[in-house]
Amino acid sequence: MTENESIQVSLLGLGAMGAALAETLLKAGHTPTLWNRSPGKADALVALGATEAGSAAEAVRASRLVVVCLFDHDSVHEVLDPLVGDLAGRTLVNLTTTKPEHARELAAWAAEAGITYLDGGIMAVPSMIGQPGASILYSGSAEAFREHEALLDVWATSTYYGEDAGLASLYDFALLSGMYVMFAGFLHGAALLAPAGVSAGEFAKLAAPWLTAMTGGFAGFAEVIDGGDYTVPGQQSLEFSDLGLFIEASVEQGVSAEPIAMVQRLIQRQVDAGHGGEGFARIFESIRRPAA
Amino acid sequence: MTENESIQVSLLGLGAMGAALAETLLKAGHTPTLWNRSPGKADALVALGATEAGSAAEAVRASRLVVVCLFDHDSVHEVLDPLVGDLAGRTLVNLTTTKPEHARELAAWAAEAGITYLDGGIMAVPSMIGQPGASILYSGSAEAFREHEALLDVWATSTYYGEDAGLASLYDFALLSGMYVMFAGFLHGAALLAPAGVSAGEFAKLAAPWLTAMTGGFAGFAEVIDGGDYTVPGQQSLEFSDLGLFIEASVEQGVSAEPIAMVQRLIQRQVDAGHGGEGFARIFESIRRPAA
Ligand SMILES: NC(=O)c1ccc[n+]([C@@H]2O[C@H](COP(=O)([O-])OP(=O)(O)OC[C@H]3O[C@@H](n4cnc5c(N)ncnc54)[C@H](OP(=O)(O)O)[C@@H]3O)[C@@H](O)[C@H]2O)c1
Ligand SMILES: NC(=O)c1ccc[n+]([C@@H]2O[C@H](COP(=O)([O-])OP(=O)(O)OC[C@H]3O[C@@H](n4cnc5c(N)ncnc54)[C@H](OP(=O)(O)O)[C@@H]3O)[C@@H](O)[C@H]2O)c1
Repeated sequence: MTENESIQVSLLGLGAMGAALAETLLKAGHTPTLWNRSPGKADALVALGATEAGSAAEAVRASRLVVVCLFDHDSVHEVLDPLVGDLAGRTLVNLTTTKPEHARELAAWAAEAGITYLDGGIMAVPSMIGQPGASILYSGSAEAFREHEALLDVWATSTYYGEDAGLASLYDFALLSGMYVMFAGFLHGAALLAPAGVSAGEFAKLAAPWLTAMTGGFAGFAEVIDGGDYTVPGQQSLEFSDLGLFIEASVEQGVSAEPIAMVQRLIQRQVDAGHGGEGFARIFESIRRPAA
Repeated sequence: MTENESIQVSLLGLGAMGAALAETLLKAGHTPTLWNRSPGKADALVALGATEAGSAAEAVRASRLVVVCLFDHDSVHEVLDPLVGDLAGRTLVNLTTTKPEHARELAAWAAEAGITYLDGGIMAVPSMIGQPGASILYSGSAEAFREHEALLDVWATSTYYGEDAGLASLYDFALLSGMYVMFAGFLHGAALLAPAGVSAGEFAKLAAPWLTAMTGGFAGFAEVIDGGDYTVPGQQSLEFSDLGLFIEASVEQGVSAEPIAMVQRLIQRQVDAGHGGEGFARIFESIRRPAA
């Protein structure tokens, strides 16, 4: 074990993402100890200078900093629950995608066992790790983040959001939700145009700069929301934003209106509650306080 | 009428948008003839050099080019149906927001009456008219577009999409749908973070560059869609894109999951049909061929 004691970081989980994290560490001059449930995944990385542990326990005992990137929250518990004694006194960085409640649960579990816990949400695909566009959001132990920031920065731009271990996941989910919803909006637009013989590629060329320009509206909506007054002048009203014609057009083109009908329901709830003359940003209230 | 015969453009409708169109024409040195149903709306514009017509008929007879920017499709018919004889031989540019089927209906109506018809979809708010970011999409008579392009360019970047008068509206609706859906996605993200004390303004600062970066994915989706093969390697699969955790997180934060649940339904239909291993872009098929 003497040799392993000099190794600073262990990484459990060598799926598509874990392997990218390991490779990037190696390229940056680190010599991680690696473990994966199924054998063979570490071979190429060992050739690059990594050490393969014979078991998860051995991997944990090899480093003060233990990073896990497994499939989901359940697999994290499956792997780490038997090792809680070995983990005591070490720092655990969990880069597995989990929902905020699960990150908080793991933080509580770690605190009880004397494990320092930092949760991370990876905003990148594996090929982006170590590249300029990659971002990883962290929350949980501020001390752990400060101590290991240089190492974490090897993977991506690291941002720390606070002691609540659920925050990184919450930011992660908020940004990814926005992305998936935007993708559905783009694909709805492409589907609307398809019956007229317009290719998705032609539409993409218009939609990318258009939606980019429209992200310029977020700050204005946010100002109204944070100000708490949806009646401030100069806003597009909810009534003006009626999407009935968009729904009709979708049906007439023979495509599903689901994406835009979702927005129309959020608008309608505010109009029905008597707020039709107020600003569009008010649909925030339809989401923030869901219908019973 | 001799004086009016030298006037090249008439504009009917001086609401927020019509007034901006008129003012921009005046600033560019044109001397439009204006009409609005309710009196008083032209006063400031007359002071800038415009001519006010005493009736819609008089406005139509004053120019070979007649532009309307009224409330909706019905109001266009209400104003123009009685003037069909006066409009014969003239060019009508309709900047009123109408759905594609209505633009096509107006084009047919115009053709029967010997009116040259050009439909326009305004991608701007009134304050943007005449400014760099503004865009107006046109379709219908190619001849009318070519003849009047210089004048149209005074308002915005003018793009012509083809003889089908419904196309401008279709592009308009496809882009605006995408925008409204993206806005809902942004506001859902803001609502997810709100219970943790994160302001919408803080989230907007992250979400705008993030979603801008993610528009970079549109071209890849489009390539798969246009190629017609959702099994090409290197794509994020529909199974990997399961949004169950996002829905749970929304519920646990006490906010509505509607925006992300809409995307999950589109995904689920493809997974249920046996395409879970194929690329995310396949939800295009959920929209293109709606559920029965
Ligand atoms: N790939 C991305 O684009 C991306 C982006 C952001 C975040 N993430 C997150 O990163 C994490 C890993 O993703 P990935 O792409 O690497 O997934 P992956 O390729 O499917 O790999 C999953 C990893 O988890 C291991 N695993 C699963 N169940 C296990 C269990 N019960 N016990 C022990 N090990 C178990 C697998 O081991 P075996 O080899 O033995 O199966 C494998 O190492 C996920 O939470 C994912 O959401 C991924
Ligand atoms: N404002 C925007 O941000 C924006 C953006 C893109 C497209 N557009 C489109 O531009 C068009 C005009 O919008 P706007 O913002 O100018 O709306 P607006 O301020 O509400 O003005 C509506 C105009 O239509 C007239 N009108 C309504 N019903 C009429 C009828 N039955 N007969 C005769 N005139 C009638 C009104 O005349 P009165 O003064 O007599 O009521 C007024 O001139 C709409 O189709 C809108 O969708 C607007």
